[in-house]
Amino acid sequence: MTTEVKPSPRERLLEAAATLTYRDGVGIGVEALCKAAGVSKRSMYQLFESKDDLLAASLERRTSAYAAALLPAADDGRSPRERILHVFEQVESQSLKPEFYGCPFLAAQIELKDRSHPASRVARGVKANLTAFFRAEAERGGAGDPELLARQLSMVFDGASARAGIGADELTGLVAPTVITLLDAAGMR
Amino acid sequence: MTTEVKPSPRERLLEAAATLTYRDGVGIGVEALCKAAGVSKRSMYQLFESKDDLLAASLERRTSAYAAALLPAADDGRSPRERILHVFEQVESQSLKPEFYGCPFLAAQIELKDRSHPASRVARGVKANLTAFFRAEAERGGAGDPELLARQLSMVFDGASARAGIGADELTGLVAPTVITLLDAAGMR
Repeated sequence: MTTEVKPSPRERLLEAAATLTYRDGVGIGVEALCKAAGVSKRSMYQLFESKDDLLAASLERRTSAYAAALLPAADDGRSPRERILHVFEQVESQSLKPEFYGCPFLAAQIELKDRSHPASRVARGVKANLTAFFRAEAERGGAGDPELLARQLSMVFDGASARAGIGADELTGLVAPTVITLLDAAGMR
Repeated sequence: MTTEVKPSPRERLLEAAATLTYRDGVGIGVEALCKAAGVSKRSMYQLFESKDDLLAASLERRTSAYAAALLPAADDGRSPRERILHVFEQVESQSLKPEFYGCPFLAAQIELKDRSHPASRVARGVKANLTAFFRAEAERGGAGDPELLARQLSMVFDGASARAGIGADELTGLVAPTVITLLDAAGMR
């Protein structure tokens, strides 16, 4: 027998903030967030200093699920090239879902504009980790210029998820050939 | 002697909307827009049906300046390859300005989320024109798959301007080598 534990007000706020800002943007009001979470504004301000802090914490909370959904398992025995392609296969597959609006960490930074916003900082860190993954695999795979390849792959990743997120393009038949061309040009094994 | 003509309330609203939404996002309030334009709310609503219409009109108004800043002159005698690279040189140069926040037409779509928003429609049309430019040059330049190359270049364009706009990367030494690799792989003259 399992006992269902109702999520705490804090968890409900984090979940509501993640879902609603992703769907509607960071401009979503505190009223709407509290309503969706079933938490009073008073309670919200007891749990979080400000809406900005709530946004930052909600992005922070998504970080490990995001990495797990995109990155291959450590030491999965595949080549660096295959491990990089895995990331793009995941984005391609995520982009097929109707509720896909692109990478939440890119969108948050574009929407917030302010680079010193606590949520921008969280998002920037997450994206820097992805670039670091690409760089490490590029090094392992013998890329001629691992740093350049990592930056190129990050740029393609963001362009791909942005365009799929706004419905400007579909990633099938687009992102894989692009990545393969870049991996080949870099001399990746 | 030149006579200085004060811009009309309509022009001032369009200018304020373009500047403020680019800097602060589409969530900017009607009050702030009117204040920046020096126009009463009453006048604003006499000139525009809604803030949404004002946003759409302000993006529409930027369209020709945007195209002129990015695209090479028709029949400038350069090769399709050089004409494509010109676009990316322009973005690279724009991205060096401190007030660069990426492509305004990409940002508007990401921020608005709603694909049927009048401003999203304007933005989508502008970006489709850029892809069409890439496709026409790809065809003229003998690309193996002009449609694929046009989509790849659009994806790199959006990834590059998004990343530079949020300060995640600089485009120097990144965007040109990437585009050249894709042009070479497509067999572009």
